[in-house]
Amino acid sequence: MRERLKGKVEEDVIKYLFYPSIQDELLHIFPYMMKVNKVHMIMLGEQGIVQKSDVKQILAALVEMEKSGTEELQIDPSIEDLHYNVEQNLISSIGIEIAGKMHTARSRNDLAASTSKMAMRKAVLHLLDLLIEMRTLFLEIAQKHTKTVMPAYTHFQAAQPITLAHYLSACCSAFERDYYRLYHAFQNLNHSPLGAGAIAGTGFNIDRELPARLLGFDGVAENTVDAIATKDYILEILSSLCIFMTTLSRISQDFYTWSTFEFNMIEIEDSIAATSSIMPQKKNPITFEHIKGKAAHVYGALMSSLAVLKNTPLTHTRDVSRESLHYFFDALYEVEAAISLTNATFRNMRIKPNAMLQSVERSFSCTTDLADFLVVKERISFRESHQIVGKMISILIDQDLGPGSISGSLLAQVSEMIIDRKILISDEILKEVLDPVLVVEKRKHIGGPSPVEVERMLSNSENNLLNDQKTRKDISRKLEESDKKLTELVSIYLELD
Amino acid sequence: MRERLKGKVEEDVIKYLFYPSIQDELLHIFPYMMKVNKVHMIMLGEQGIVQKSDVKQILAALVEMEKSGTEELQIDPSIEDLHYNVEQNLISSIGIEIAGKMHTARSRNDLAASTSKMAMRKAVLHLLDLLIEMRTLFLEIAQKHTKTVMPAYTHFQAAQPITLAHYLSACCSAFERDYYRLYHAFQNLNHSPLGAGAIAGTGFNIDRELPARLLGFDGVAENTVDAIATKDYILEILSSLCIFMTTLSRISQDFYTWSTFEFNMIEIEDSIAATSSIMPQKKNPITFEHIKGKAAHVYGALMSSLAVLKNTPLTHTRDVSRESLHYFFDALYEVEAAISLTNATFRNMRIKPNAMLQSVERSFSCTTDLADFLVVKERISFRESHQIVGKMISILIDQDLGPGSISGSLLAQVSEMIIDRKILISDEILKEVLDPVLVVEKRKHIGGPSPVEVERMLSNSENNLLNDQKTRKDISRKLEESDKKLTELVSIYLELD
Amino acid sequence: MRERLKGKVEEDVIKYLFYPSIQDELLHIFPYMMKVNKVHMIMLGEQGIVQKSDVKQILAALVEMEKSGTEELQIDPSIEDLHYNVEQNLISSIGIEIAGKMHTARSRNDLAASTSKMAMRKAVLHLLDLLIEMRTLFLEIAQKHTKTVMPAYTHFQAAQPITLAHYLSACCSAFERDYYRLYHAFQNLNHSPLGAGAIAGTGFNIDRELPARLLGFDGVAENTVDAIATKDYILEILSSLCIFMTTLSRISQDFYTWSTFEFNMIEIEDSIAATSSIMPQKKNPITFEHIKGKAAHVYGALMSSLAVLKNTPLTHTRDVSRESLHYFFDALYEVEAAISLTNATFRNMRIKPNAMLQSVERSFSCTTDLADFLVVKERISFRESHQIVGKMISILIDQDLGPGSISGSLLAQVSEMIIDRKILISDEILKEVLDPVLVVEKRKHIGGPSPVEVERMLSNSENNLLNDQKTRKDISRKLEESDKKLTELVSIYLELD
Amino acid sequence: MRERLKGKVEEDVIKYLFYPSIQDELLHIFPYMMKVNKVHMIMLGEQGIVQKSDVKQILAALVEMEKSGTEELQIDPSIEDLHYNVEQNLISSIGIEIAGKMHTARSRNDLAASTSKMAMRKAVLHLLDLLIEMRTLFLEIAQKHTKTVMPAYTHFQAAQPITLAHYLSACCSAFERDYYRLYHAFQNLNHSPLGAGAIAGTGFNIDRELPARLLGFDGVAENTVDAIATKDYILEILSSLCIFMTTLSRISQDFYTWSTFEFNMIEIEDSIAATSSIMPQKKNPITFEHIKGKAAHVYGALMSSLAVLKNTPLTHTRDVSRESLHYFFDALYEVEAAISLTNATFRNMRIKPNAMLQSVERSFSCTTDLADFLVVKERISFRESHQIVGKMISILIDQDLGPGSISGSLLAQVSEMIIDRKILISDEILKEVLDPVLVVEKRKHIGGPSPVEVERMLSNSENNLLNDQKTRKDISRKLEESDKKLTELVSIYLELD
Repeated sequence: MRERLKGKVEEDVIKYLFYPSIQDELLHIFPYMMKVNKVHMIMLGEQGIVQKSDVKQILAALVEMEKSGTEELQIDPSIEDLHYNVEQNLISSIGIEIAGKMHTARSRNDLAASTSKMAMRKAVLHLLDLLIEMRTLFLEIAQKHTKTVMPAYTHFQAAQPITLAHYLSACCSAFERDYYRLYHAFQNLNHSPLGAGAIAGTGFNIDRELPARLLGFDGVAENTVDAIATKDYILEILSSLCIFMTTLSRISQDFYTWSTFEFNMIEIEDSIAATSSIMPQKKNPITFEHIKGKAAHVYGALMSSLAVLKNTPLTHTRDVSRESLHYFFDALYEVEAAISLTNATFRNMRIKPNAMLQSVERSFSCTTDLADFLVVKERISFRESHQIVGKMISILIDQDLGPGSISGSLLAQVSEMIIDRKILISDEILKEVLDPVLVVEKRKHIGGPSPVEVERMLSNSENNLLNDQKTRKDISRKLEESDKKLTELVSIYLELD
Repeated sequence: MRERLKGKVEEDVIKYLFYPSIQDELLHIFPYMMKVNKVHMIMLGEQGIVQKSDVKQILAALVEMEKSGTEELQIDPSIEDLHYNVEQNLISSIGIEIAGKMHTARSRNDLAASTSKMAMRKAVLHLLDLLIEMRTLFLEIAQKHTKTVMPAYTHFQAAQPITLAHYLSACCSAFERDYYRLYHAFQNLNHSPLGAGAIAGTGFNIDRELPARLLGFDGVAENTVDAIATKDYILEILSSLCIFMTTLSRISQDFYTWSTFEFNMIEIEDSIAATSSIMPQKKNPITFEHIKGKAAHVYGALMSSLAVLKNTPLTHTRDVSRESLHYFFDALYEVEAAISLTNATFRNMRIKPNAMLQSVERSFSCTTDLADFLVVKERISFRESHQIVGKMISILIDQDLGPGSISGSLLAQVSEMIIDRKILISDEILKEVLDPVLVVEKRKHIGGPSPVEVERMLSNSENNLLNDQKTRKDISRKLEESDKKLTELVSIYLELD
Repeated sequence: MRERLKGKVEEDVIKYLFYPSIQDELLHIFPYMMKVNKVHMIMLGEQGIVQKSDVKQILAALVEMEKSGTEELQIDPSIEDLHYNVEQNLISSIGIEIAGKMHTARSRNDLAASTSKMAMRKAVLHLLDLLIEMRTLFLEIAQKHTKTVMPAYTHFQAAQPITLAHYLSACCSAFERDYYRLYHAFQNLNHSPLGAGAIAGTGFNIDRELPARLLGFDGVAENTVDAIATKDYILEILSSLCIFMTTLSRISQDFYTWSTFEFNMIEIEDSIAATSSIMPQKKNPITFEHIKGKAAHVYGALMSSLAVLKNTPLTHTRDVSRESLHYFFDALYEVEAAISLTNATFRNMRIKPNAMLQSVERSFSCTTDLADFLVVKERISFRESHQIVGKMISILIDQDLGPGSISGSLLAQVSEMIIDRKILISDEILKEVLDPVLVVEKRKHIGGPSPVEVERMLSNSENNLLNDQKTRKDISRKLEESDKKLTELVSIYLELD
Repeated sequence: MRERLKGKVEEDVIKYLFYPSIQDELLHIFPYMMKVNKVHMIMLGEQGIVQKSDVKQILAALVEMEKSGTEELQIDPSIEDLHYNVEQNLISSIGIEIAGKMHTARSRNDLAASTSKMAMRKAVLHLLDLLIEMRTLFLEIAQKHTKTVMPAYTHFQAAQPITLAHYLSACCSAFERDYYRLYHAFQNLNHSPLGAGAIAGTGFNIDRELPARLLGFDGVAENTVDAIATKDYILEILSSLCIFMTTLSRISQDFYTWSTFEFNMIEIEDSIAATSSIMPQKKNPITFEHIKGKAAHVYGALMSSLAVLKNTPLTHTRDVSRESLHYFFDALYEVEAAISLTNATFRNMRIKPNAMLQSVERSFSCTTDLADFLVVKERISFRESHQIVGKMISILIDQDLGPGSISGSLLAQVSEMIIDRKILISDEILKEVLDPVLVVEKRKHIGGPSPVEVERMLSNSENNLLNDQKTRKDISRKLEESDKKLTELVSIYLELD
């Protein structure tokens, strides 16, 4: 294959470039390469570019090679890549006169772009499945906890009461957008570069739509320069995952915090904890730590791909086509791990509703509602009311007292200080106003934490989930049908006389 | 406003946090804040939460304040932010009993989320406009150059002939996807957080849909935790711009290269060049350099926002809500600059069709077509044909000869060496086979460089552009209508008895 | 200045490139530019390249211009940058025959490299000062808390007792390395590019050492290509700050956690807290949030600079020389803010030794020492001992009991289960073994938390600090001396006949 | 090991966390773990913490295990990591009563920190070796080309003449700083965390200096919190490599450009080129593409490590200690590949001095020197002279003429236009002034391109190289001596009665 070039290849070029890339292709690309080879031969046959009898011979040899598997291939790393090695094996097997026709009207550039897109497609579809699994799990847990009152923290301090379901419904909403972004990236990816040749297409009368269909693509990546050179689908996948992992790291951070002895709102089961080699008392919530950490790897992978591509010519080069993917598959694997660990953790977690409620009660987190109550009841402005309640709290904190010590008499005394008027509210009413369960129930407006509103949102999320599951299944069915169609066409050729 | 807290604020907190943030809000946020204040008051009035006569008074004071402008405001940086300062000014003007009602049923958290989304919306819409302008310009240039033959380079070497229009059509396709991604990010952004309160909504019977409509949002960001805490819209905007800028950097790199003395395929006009202070001969194509550089800033801004948000609790904190935007607006401005400079450059660029064609002719970039021709004409396999042509080129290069020296006799001689058979083709036919214009014309399949196919693709791109322009105009009209409706409602209140 | 180029400059080039860059130079670069101009003129005079009388005239005009300040300059943004504008003003004032000599034997490239290095130097030296201030403060607090026992957490769980001083001494050690890295970056930066010309030096017989000395550089950046093209000093400064800010974000995260109601080990003063607009009870520790967030901006700035420079030619271009600095000064300002806020926070923080000790006592964090004690006392292996203690803790936790319930009888019972032998230890001895204060005191080996060892480490840190303060002062003195020398030389020239 | 925890470990925790980490440790960490185990036992023996006879038994078992190798180990992935597995194997072999003593006075935290530092040390030292190799190679090539005149480009345009040696000397200077930064990172890394325990040291009377010495560390990482928690050494290594790779990408970009048909200043040999599968004429300089691409991976790895660590507590967690290293070793391997490929490329590259000189001659890149000449000869100011020469060039370019057409008569004509005076210079003198070889020779000042000055700089670089080689050898010798000492001490114990 190196007719134009003379002499042998430098050892380090083989060691650092050709050999590892061939190893990688043997592991991850070979099945796609064989599929693309078969599809391409059928197209050449259908278009009359290669005689059907020759197509038959090549298909037969390819089917044979596929059966034997990669371990039967003769690999010479000095001839650059797996494609050349496959062609060389084919030539050894059926001769250059026939085998040499396989590379008609195509290039390694469109071939490699196609096989790498197919490998990426598989990985992305797997993540879509895992996301669906996670969304299902979060929904299930949420549905059980629409009345589990807990503090919403702002600035790491108990702010106002919500429910665990309310929090988890927020996660579900975010995950829906993450799913959609990844799904859109999948759609952007799933167009066939085959037929784009090296960059400029080919003078042969090829059909680009048949191969696209047989390989399960949604269509053709039309402009051949665009098909070979632009790599926005790589970046779109990685950035959609960065966004998702950022949110996931934040949820992990929250549950990690809530699992501490000090916050004590959840407990992870032993089955997902790690021990200490020397501290007998430790039960370490390591899954949260790993999930948080793994977010960073996707950032790293995105940064690598962006920086690889920046300032490169808009065409095929090795940095554009190979180095841009260096951390891609690993990053997707890290996302897979993160989602799987999240699912394992949330399946093995004990939620402590009583402790959550106590956290609300011992904090002053219902006092906004007291201020609101005074606004309505006493027709004072919110800012005045805020000042009164703020002063009361300040007095209590100075005496190391909690919200339980809010009383009608204190209110009367403080209101006189602030607005020159004694506000008289009975202790019973104050107690009711400050009851977290009632506070939550009152917040019935769109998006609020009241059980009825959260149930409505969860029900919407469930519908979205069902819809996404359906669309996802359609993709799988379509891919299976393409595969079946390809197998049929190969059979038809193999049975030609 | 600091009733609960005692003593004064540390100077460095004011210097590094409160003061710069207030300055920033005065410059960029004030008009949105006033709009949100008015919308909120109208909603409180309509819902009966605040009496209509009080609403009227507050609206009147707000309209007055808006007219006087920011320079009339009394600003005290120790009270944290512009919102508090505006409220304080209102209190000074109409008293706490009325002015103190403005902050009923809301929080600075939903307020700030709303105003920052409105500022982001404006910046994103401006970029959508600039992208439309750039797409229009690229299309116009492309339409003039469907027959301007030039080399497609791969690995920085002339590979095969295409046309300038073919290259630019690839750019147009990429820009369409960029536009769509940014447009989707806009849609994701354009939901109203107002009414989400601090994080948990409010116990008042608020209406969240009216304010959303009056502020030009497409709907309500429902779950209040989601509305306040998740910031995926920031990341989606920045990452869609990273992807775009990566492609733009690559296009700039190409034209930068083509503008060199050595490549000599385009020439930039003096009006966009810079001089040298000491080298009298220099005409420096600095716009390309800046465009390439600016891509990096968007990466930096994305990395900053991702890293800010990672491992934060899923709620409101100052890092989540403020620091996450630190480089956001600057990055968008850099994109604005990059597109504007691109447009200026492409409007002031001389394309050299003759030089482009010569680049093709002096390279061997039509020899793939010679190999293809032999496949068809001589019914040999592509690989054999590739070997024959490769050998011919190798011989010519050793003698420092170019493609013009390919001849029938050389072909005959080399083919005998490789396939033991003299291939006989006349010099005239060889010349025709190697004619770049004919080579390009032949590539008529979907996505190929032939003028007819490129015209088809450009026509598609034009339709997409028209469609996007229409959708973009609809957004502006809708925003104007919201503004008008708000003005009307304010008038109605102001005219109440 | 645009003799070679014709026509006027495109508006967008002025708007996005020339104008903002001139504004920036007026604010930040003008004083350095004037200094460099003067130094250059003196060198030209000393070397006989320009006649001393001409040097005198130019110096006089420069001194005049410096006095009038930037607001007196006539600025035309179409002539690219401040340097050209300064030259043009000079020409207007004293004529091109004399003023035109200022740019002899230099280029804007070496000029701009010099002035930007001087601006960077100032910012870096300021950060070194702030780091010294922070190290001093941490040391002071540490020295007061060598006996303040607190839990060391691992995996967010109380692990073993240390002291606050021990923790702070770790911070001091890390800060010393941060200081050293930044100091090294400063040294790498502080070499003069002046005389490197555009990239290739000059044919004039210049002296590069005199200007280096007069501008306070430590030496000459020798190779002219290296002096103009490589920008490793930018990256070294930013990456040293990324490393520092990462550590600072972690310390902030810890104190942020410890300031929660739940952890309750420190309390921030009101003077550095923010309020809530609606939650009267809130005292928000916002400085920690901002400090954590600001770390991310330095990452972003580094990523921007790296990505700008990648794949650029090793020479002067606008991306290399300007865009590479786009976020540089802002990032340094963010570090300044972060350190200042850290200092303000640590000066306004109440440490709660009792609460810290209680945290240790209510956790099982001394049980490693119980296991160790059994190893020594009972001559069993650590792993057996670990099993015994682990079992005891497991039994207690199942009964919701704490470490206070560890007793001789429980130990006897459990040890029989694990090693078939009753270990008999009195309750008094167990109590002593589990006493956190004693546990800490025992850990006297190098680096351990015992007060005596921590005092030794703090004393070392103090010596390092004193040493760094001295070196830092030497730098300032040297810079002042350079300035003085320059002023003297200017005077000598001005007094020439 | 999981006495405190009940039940089995979740499958996904094993699949995504324990299993891959054990596989990794088996491949990369086992030898270091065995070394650390032995060193620790010797220390325990020397300090009298474990009886010497027990130490002997454990050492004997460890030596045995080392000999058998990892394939003989019984691995149970549910017990978390390799350390526990090694201990478990030891227990199976010699019983818990003895084997259980190995983990006395240490933790997995200090153990893992030690072994990972040892693995990092090896990788960094290998890179230092490769850097030395590259510096040697660049120096050798430079020394051959001190008179190879070529254009220095600025803004991608020929600017002024330099020599190839001058350019390469700039590379050498940059590489020296890169080497020093990496060497400093190595020194920062090379301190022993052993003895830091989980985070708080130990109550046993350990000696931390003996293990440090026996493991080849330069000293003890003292403060135990610092030793376990801070990871600045990871970040320092990665950022020093980012800086280096940025410069390397730029050098690659230059040679990539110069290897094009259009620039034609160098030619890469076939042995490092790749072919095209369809374009017979292609010889693709892929090594440059890969080198450029690989820079981005180090950025990605740094970004990953920074983002992992940000906002984590300053202690041991799994994200801090494991995830922070996720891309570390791969990034170092990519740097190894990049340097090796650079070396291979520069060894297989043909430099074309004639073509380089022609590039200078056909450009106007000596005209700065003409302007300078007029300054000296005609005593006009540089700005006037610049205007005269600029005008001449402008006239020539309008007529499509090159620098060869600069003549005395043109100069006379133009000078009259600009300064109202005919400057009369003979064509011979003009030719001499514009001779690139003479222009280069004249630039003799510090750092200039004249052969004599470049030779001086290269000689300095050579001295620095020799010095670094010496220091590097000292490190290796020291490590060998530590190993030898450890082997001796083990032998002494094994021979105890």
